[in-house]
Order: sequence, then structure tokens, then C-alpha cells
Amino acid sequence: MPYVNIKITPAATPEQKAALIKGVTDLLVTVLDKNPETTFVVIDEIDADNWGIGGDTVTVRRQRKG
Amino acid sequence: MPYVNIKITPAATPEQKAALIKGVTDLLVTVLDKNPETTFVVIDEIDADNWGIGGDTVTVRRQRKG
Amino acid sequence: MPYVNIKITPAATPEQKAALIKGVTDLLVTVLDKNPETTFVVIDEIDADNWGIGGDTVTVRRQRKG
Amino acid sequence: MPYVNIKITPAATPEQKAALIKGVTDLLVTVLDKNPETTFVVIDEIDADNWGIGGDTVTVRRQRKG
Amino acid sequence: MPYVNIKITPAATPEQKAALIKGVTDLLVTVLDKNPETTFVVIDEIDADNWGIGGDTVTVRRQRKG
Amino acid sequence: MPYVNIKITPAATPEQKAALIKGVTDLLVTVLDKNPETTFVVIDEIDADNWGIGGDTVTVRRQRKG
Repeated sequence: MPYVNIKITPAATPEQKAALIKGVTDLLVTVLDKNPETTFVVIDEIDADNWGIGGDTVTVRRQRKG
Repeated sequence: MPYVNIKITPAATPEQKAALIKGVTDLLVTVLDKNPETTFVVIDEIDADNWGIGGDTVTVRRQRKG
Repeated sequence: MPYVNIKITPAATPEQKAALIKGVTDLLVTVLDKNPETTFVVIDEIDADNWGIGGDTVTVRRQRKG
Repeated sequence: MPYVNIKITPAATPEQKAALIKGVTDLLVTVLDKNPETTFVVIDEIDADNWGIGGDTVTVRRQRKG
Repeated sequence: MPYVNIKITPAATPEQKAALIKGVTDLLVTVLDKNPETTFVVIDEIDADNWGIGGDTVTVRRQRKG
Repeated sequence: MPYVNIKITPAATPEQKAALIKGVTDLLVTVLDKNPETTFVVIDEIDADNWGIGGDTVTVRRQRKG
């Protein structure tokens, strides 16, 4: 009965999101022998203005590297 | 001082969301004698492409049943 | 496929936790016609030292009222 | 390696969100001597219809005060 | 900069937890080309009394199957 | 009505946790003019075996530096 929440910045395609869901579900089956039918995965896409690392928004960090 | 987070797929109406908030607050008052004024409820609506069960997105599961 | 996370201070009995799980699952069935078999509820018990309201820990707020 | 999630109602400006990220990162450095480079902050903006206190949505609470 | 939270029932060994962390980090690198150095994984172990599916605690569901 | 969740590795003292709660509440008052009485802070202490960065547990990362 695992529950997994993945937070990423946008934008992943539907195919990429499906690959994350499949991959993390398979991982829980392989490592912990969990039942996939009761394995939930929720992906949250978080805007770069709303995500901070090192005290800066990801928006600012990307501009600095650009 | 409970905090409750409810994740659902869209789309609930404002009336349904109000009913969830009222219902879960009443439940915490009834079962645990909590103070409703310090009971928080946050509802997240998660797109069907971003929710996985059994290794598939909810989008795919719904198409299969359709 | 709802997922619900309930955070409370300790200590609820197993019977109270079972009542919360049953109550919130029934609520989602009633209000949104969700399938209970894919409704998850996770209860976190948070120590009063680790919970703050109004800038104070719940530990301190309870002492003040005592 | 702290992780901080801040949930607020909309709408904060990019400058306010940057100030929250900076402020909470500095706080973790000051209080716990954490490394800012491995300090993550994620801000979620939650619609007033999706947030409940005291059994009512924030939308309704604001109308009542208005 | 992904953040992943995995909730499971106890008890996973340290080796299994390390395998989950490695596996999900590799998955994010492979699928989304994320930087592993800013990929966080947090595992929460949730007691079977605190986890509900289908309106019952996992404790009760396991007894029923036993 | 903000809600803040802070995840750290153990072990913070009760005084440090109170300082985090006070500091983040003040920050929300200063930056967003939020009401402290409806500002919640929840601190989760996550074991170093259950936290991963760069594909390794924090336990392993700390040993490597030691």
C-alpha cells in the first residue's frame, strides 16, 4: 500500500509522467514486494517561482546560469 | 489542531468541496473532541495524468474501462 | 482514488484511528461517489513540541491554559 | 538537508515568494546550522475554495467578514 | 530539483531503503534528466494502525487475510 | 491561514524547534501579513537512513565525509 508523491518543476510530458509512475511502482514491487494495485503515485508540478534552493528561487538560479 | 489534506482528481464543485471540509471537521470533533477553529483542511485536485495506480495513470485506467 | 492525510497530536487509540479512517472514507463515498477500495488514509501523530500555532508550540500553549 | 513546504492562499507576488524562500532558508541556517545549498522550499498556493478552517471554506469565512 | 516522498508500512531494512532512494533517483535522472545532487527522497514508515484502505486499517485487513 | 511543514534530520532540541516555529510564523506575518493565530507549523524529524540526496542515504553521505 505504498503512497509516493513526486514534486518536479514543469513541464513533463504525459509520456514522461507515465514513465515515472510505471518506474516507481515497479521499484516498490521489486524492492519491497508491494502489490502494485494498492500503490499510488501523485505527481505535483511546482512552478520555478515557487521552488527554492540555497535561498533563491529556481527561476533566479536558472537565470544566473543562462 | 488537526490538519487534513485531501487529494482527489478533478472536478469537485465548490459545494462538494465545502461538504468535504464540513464533514471531515465534524468527524474530528466527534471522534477526537478537537476544536474546529483550529482544524485545517486543504484539498488538492490532481490531474488524472499525474495520478497513478497499479503502475498506470488514472487517464489510462479510465480509457481501458470506457 | 482519493488520498487523505490526517495530522493530529498524540494519542489517539486504535479504535479512534479506525473511526477516523472509516469516517473519512465514507465521506468521500457519499460526497464524491469515490470507490472505497482505492481510498487511502494516512494518519500522522505529531508530538506537541513539533506543532506550532500562533508562533508557539502546542506544548507551550497547553501549559499556558493549564 | 531540510525540506520546507509552505501552503498559502493566492496570490503572493514573485518578490514575496522569493522573500519567503530566503527567509526560511536563513532561519534554518541560523537555528540549526543547515547547509543552504541542500535546503529546499516549495510553496503551494491553495485556492480559497479548497481551504477550510472551522468547518467552512476560506471563501465563506471571508464573505462573512466582508 | 525533484523531491520524492515515499510512504510505506514498516519495516524496510536500511538496505531496502537505500535501494528505494537509489532507484527513484536514477529514475528521475533517466526519465527527466534531473541532477541527482538536487534530488531529495524522504521515506516515511507508517504504522499499520495508521493506514487505511477501503475504510479499514491495514492491521484489520491483514488479520482478515491471515 | 498558512500551513508550513518543515522536515529535518534529528535531533533538534525543544528550544530549536520553538525557534523554528516562532521564526517561520513571524516571516509569514512580515512578508504576507498573515494572521499568526491561524498559522500552523509542523516539524517532522526524518531519520538519516530515510533521507536520500544524490542517490545515497544521508547516513552514507555522512560516513563518507567522516
